[in-house]
Amino acid sequence: MDSIMLAYIAGFLDGDGSIFFQIVPRKDYKIKFQIRGSVAFYQKTENIEILEWLKKNLKSGYIRNRRTGMSDYTIVDSKEVEKILNCLQPYVRIKKKQLILGLNILQKIKSVKSDKDFLEVCKLVDKFGELNYSKKRKVTYQTVKERLQK
Amino acid sequence: MDSIMLAYIAGFLDGDGSIFFQIVPRKDYKIKFQIRGSVAFYQKTENIEILEWLKKNLKSGYIRNRRTGMSDYTIVDSKEVEKILNCLQPYVRIKKKQLILGLNILQKIKSVKSDKDFLEVCKLVDKFGELNYSKKRKVTYQTVKERLQK
Repeated sequence: MDSIMLAYIAGFLDGDGSIFFQIVPRKDYKIKFQIRGSVAFYQKTENIEILEWLKKNLKSGYIRNRRTGMSDYTIVDSKEVEKILNCLQPYVRIKKKQLILGLNILQKIKSVKSDKDFLEVCKLVDKFGELNYSKKRKVTYQTVKERLQK
Repeated sequence: MDSIMLAYIAGFLDGDGSIFFQIVPRKDYKIKFQIRGSVAFYQKTENIEILEWLKKNLKSGYIRNRRTGMSDYTIVDSKEVEKILNCLQPYVRIKKKQLILGLNILQKIKSVKSDKDFLEVCKLVDKFGELNYSKKRKVTYQTVKERLQK
């Protein structure tokens, strides 16, 4: 993708998008949780073309239409999220801190070898939530720590 | 300004900005109304830096902090709005129709020579309002027509 397209997408992400990380319970995982990063773009369903255009160019993720008249285009696959964040890094302005920390988390996840390593990444996810002023997070470092101590 | 910066601004405008036109009552004007075009960018006050950066680069307009924790950066001067819309035209995607119609309105305003000409521009402003799904417009083509018939 060329730099003009990436700059546009970065501006759109800063305006109406979101980068976020979640700790998701996973019964089938050895460490009972998964750390999931997402990049999402929001728009009124009547403007869904822009989300389809993004999907065509970013080549991953899925579009959902909400009953509220809003749609979102979300990428969750770690490799894809990492690739997109790397591409957008030179152009993003408002969400620069999130982007850097996000890349850091995605790097660290790869080298997790113990519960302790995993908990360190959970701490970073909590920090990420603070950057986003996120109030809806249910599973935090503390949740994981308590679960692993059982 | 370089194309990468303009592409970013276009993406930000598509995501979190607005182009709009108003018909404003003006007692001191010969035709008792003024047609005013605006380009506005919105952001939480905590992210005001991005609005300051935009102002520094677009070199006009003003920033306002609302009590709601939101800020906006708005450009109203016709010449400046026209210049900005021209610069952003190759990059804007969602608001492309608004941008083209906006430039058309700004062109037509310049050659208004009669009440009839002015009313024609007011019609275009109504059309612009429809593109924006604007519900708050008080002064429309009809208002101006009735006032001029008095």
